[in-house]
Amino acid sequence: MRTPTGAPWVPGFLAGGTASGIKKSGARDMALIFCPHGATAAGVFTTNQVRSPAVVLSRERLSRGRAHAILANSGCANTYTGEAGARDAREIARKAAAALGVREGGILTSSTGVIGSRLPLTKMSRAIPGLVARLSATGWQDAADAIRTTDTRSKLAFRRARLAEGDVRVLGIAKGAGMIEPHMATLLVFLATNAAVQAPFLRRVLREACEGSFNRVTIDGCMSTSDTAVILASGTQCRDGFAPASASGKRFARMVAEVCRELADAIVSDGEGVTKRVAVRVRGARTDREARVAAYAVANSLLVKTALRGEDPNWGRIVQALGASAARIRPDRIGIRFGKVTLLGRGRWLGVAAEAAARRVMRGDAWEMTIDLGAGRGTWEVLTGDLTEDYIRINADYRS
Amino acid sequence: MRTPTGAPWVPGFLAGGTASGIKKSGARDMALIFCPHGATAAGVFTTNQVRSPAVVLSRERLSRGRAHAILANSGCANTYTGEAGARDAREIARKAAAALGVREGGILTSSTGVIGSRLPLTKMSRAIPGLVARLSATGWQDAADAIRTTDTRSKLAFRRARLAEGDVRVLGIAKGAGMIEPHMATLLVFLATNAAVQAPFLRRVLREACEGSFNRVTIDGCMSTSDTAVILASGTQCRDGFAPASASGKRFARMVAEVCRELADAIVSDGEGVTKRVAVRVRGARTDREARVAAYAVANSLLVKTALRGEDPNWGRIVQALGASAARIRPDRIGIRFGKVTLLGRGRWLGVAAEAAARRVMRGDAWEMTIDLGAGRGTWEVLTGDLTEDYIRINADYRS
Repeated sequence: MRTPTGAPWVPGFLAGGTASGIKKSGARDMALIFCPHGATAAGVFTTNQVRSPAVVLSRERLSRGRAHAILANSGCANTYTGEAGARDAREIARKAAAALGVREGGILTSSTGVIGSRLPLTKMSRAIPGLVARLSATGWQDAADAIRTTDTRSKLAFRRARLAEGDVRVLGIAKGAGMIEPHMATLLVFLATNAAVQAPFLRRVLREACEGSFNRVTIDGCMSTSDTAVILASGTQCRDGFAPASASGKRFARMVAEVCRELADAIVSDGEGVTKRVAVRVRGARTDREARVAAYAVANSLLVKTALRGEDPNWGRIVQALGASAARIRPDRIGIRFGKVTLLGRGRWLGVAAEAAARRVMRGDAWEMTIDLGAGRGTWEVLTGDLTEDYIRINADYRS
Repeated sequence: MRTPTGAPWVPGFLAGGTASGIKKSGARDMALIFCPHGATAAGVFTTNQVRSPAVVLSRERLSRGRAHAILANSGCANTYTGEAGARDAREIARKAAAALGVREGGILTSSTGVIGSRLPLTKMSRAIPGLVARLSATGWQDAADAIRTTDTRSKLAFRRARLAEGDVRVLGIAKGAGMIEPHMATLLVFLATNAAVQAPFLRRVLREACEGSFNRVTIDGCMSTSDTAVILASGTQCRDGFAPASASGKRFARMVAEVCRELADAIVSDGEGVTKRVAVRVRGARTDREARVAAYAVANSLLVKTALRGEDPNWGRIVQALGASAARIRPDRIGIRFGKVTLLGRGRWLGVAAEAAARRVMRGDAWEMTIDLGAGRGTWEVLTGDLTEDYIRINADYRS
């Protein structure tokens, strides 16, 4: 939902994006999000043992629960660059702080792109004054554009509600197309709200929203070294803050969750080479944990993902993936539905006509696969995409 | 090593293959291996929770440690076909036993191909007399051909040694091109030896040979429902049997291991769409188990496998896969070598010239990647292949 009168914006924030020359193509590669009066802030980060210095720095600075700005770049992850990389991350944050006139500790940074390359500090420093000059209340689209790597589209989601406390807004931008299987973390996601929210509640809302969105997404089973989700709350609206248990507090949490889900959907739809978005819903597992294991086993199976590509209702590959997983299954009780078409019912194949109907479901570009393990009450859902020749081409040629 | 005078053979065995019409293409699809006097036998099977009835039947029959024959078919896995499928497996074994004039319990069966389709019993029964008539001492190549599914080449390996006990031979045939990541089991592998070997020793030799070969192979991370390795020992040579600890016993175990490794190499080289075979060697892990986790994390990473395809020494993806794995790593100590070229030495990138040299190594169709985690003495090795557009095409179109 955009505002009817133009681009979405959130009181208390300025945003923008520019091309600094990190990307040879000349595309935008630096984004800045600025809250002049300072924001309550919370973040969720990758659990990869190899982390970008930007992740290390931002996580440390977020421990205070406050931030002034996020400076993000694409085209270079500045990961695995040793002590020099850590110095570079601090240096670029210092430059941004000076240009914005805020203290250095209020700057969060985020870097995405090729691993092992250092930030081109001179280019980036030179671009900062122009980036600051171009900041505007409606500059979010430029910022969303500037954090893209192999994304073909920029991703922005917006929610607005008139609560008892006033006009509350939540806006999010995200990037992510490959190296996507977050665990307890996400891709690059930056969220802004004008609500006043206490840091502990903000942390909880963000964690739960990530759990229900980005943590249920897989493109290629590869967890990034830069995954970052940050939410900033400017507090220009409803200055007293939400009580977490109040109707407004719950509504606010729902708005954040909805923005995250919309961005997660967009990330899968725009996954590298992806032509179809499929929600894999597992139920009937012994526990939620086993449902999760089963759902990822199916959602990450190369044989299932190529069958999605071929629009082939090859349920044998789903059964194979379930059987090979660490989730306990009862082969004679499995049920599989594509959309509303039942392919397997309690371990029995429903025949050629069911397969033909399932094939029609598979022609859609977004559909749901429901798997019943018949063993308990555990459930989980994962969003996945098909695996195509384009994924191979994009990743075989990424650095050349 | 083939016999100089023609096709390899093993005293005590007859083998052959025929086209029964399971495959629409008219290619060979039924194989028979026969030991008229009966053989000592051992097997290793898939650990997938969903198993072909052929696996269930053969495993049960092997508990006696004796077998007369293996009847294998390609084109239909007869998996997930319920009680009817189990009856079909027994019925076709009965037909083969009658034609061979041996007791039914001596027949092992094996089925590979599409999951969820039942065996075409009439076609197969009709083909058995001809298959039996065509059995010959040198029919192994036809048998190897008849167990192919998407394999582009048949796979046969042979070793022969003049031991104190006489002329001892080990011959193996295998199939496997996709749905390959065995765990404690293999693909379809049938081995024959003329040595007299006690069943317990034969089991141990087979288990260890599988562990060092087929259990270290991955094409697509998908564990099959039909994986089977069986060894038959006719005992026409050295009738007293080997003492496991004797020089001949050890030499025999080595021959079996070599045959299995040669077949495993052939399976990866002929993996679906594979153009390169890469041995991923991890050392310096805290334990062998962690080395194994790290090796599979790299060997199964889609980003690493597409970089192999693109001949791009993108070591960042290797570091990313290691960091995301459950193996504990010390990022600042990682070493990575492609062939003899060091790319990373104790966490430091060795520069553009090293990358250029690594790129030359990557042009080869078989090479070694050595990863040092710098954390201990654990080691593991996994054979993997690149991921190519052809894998997608083969699997998107498999059933159409």
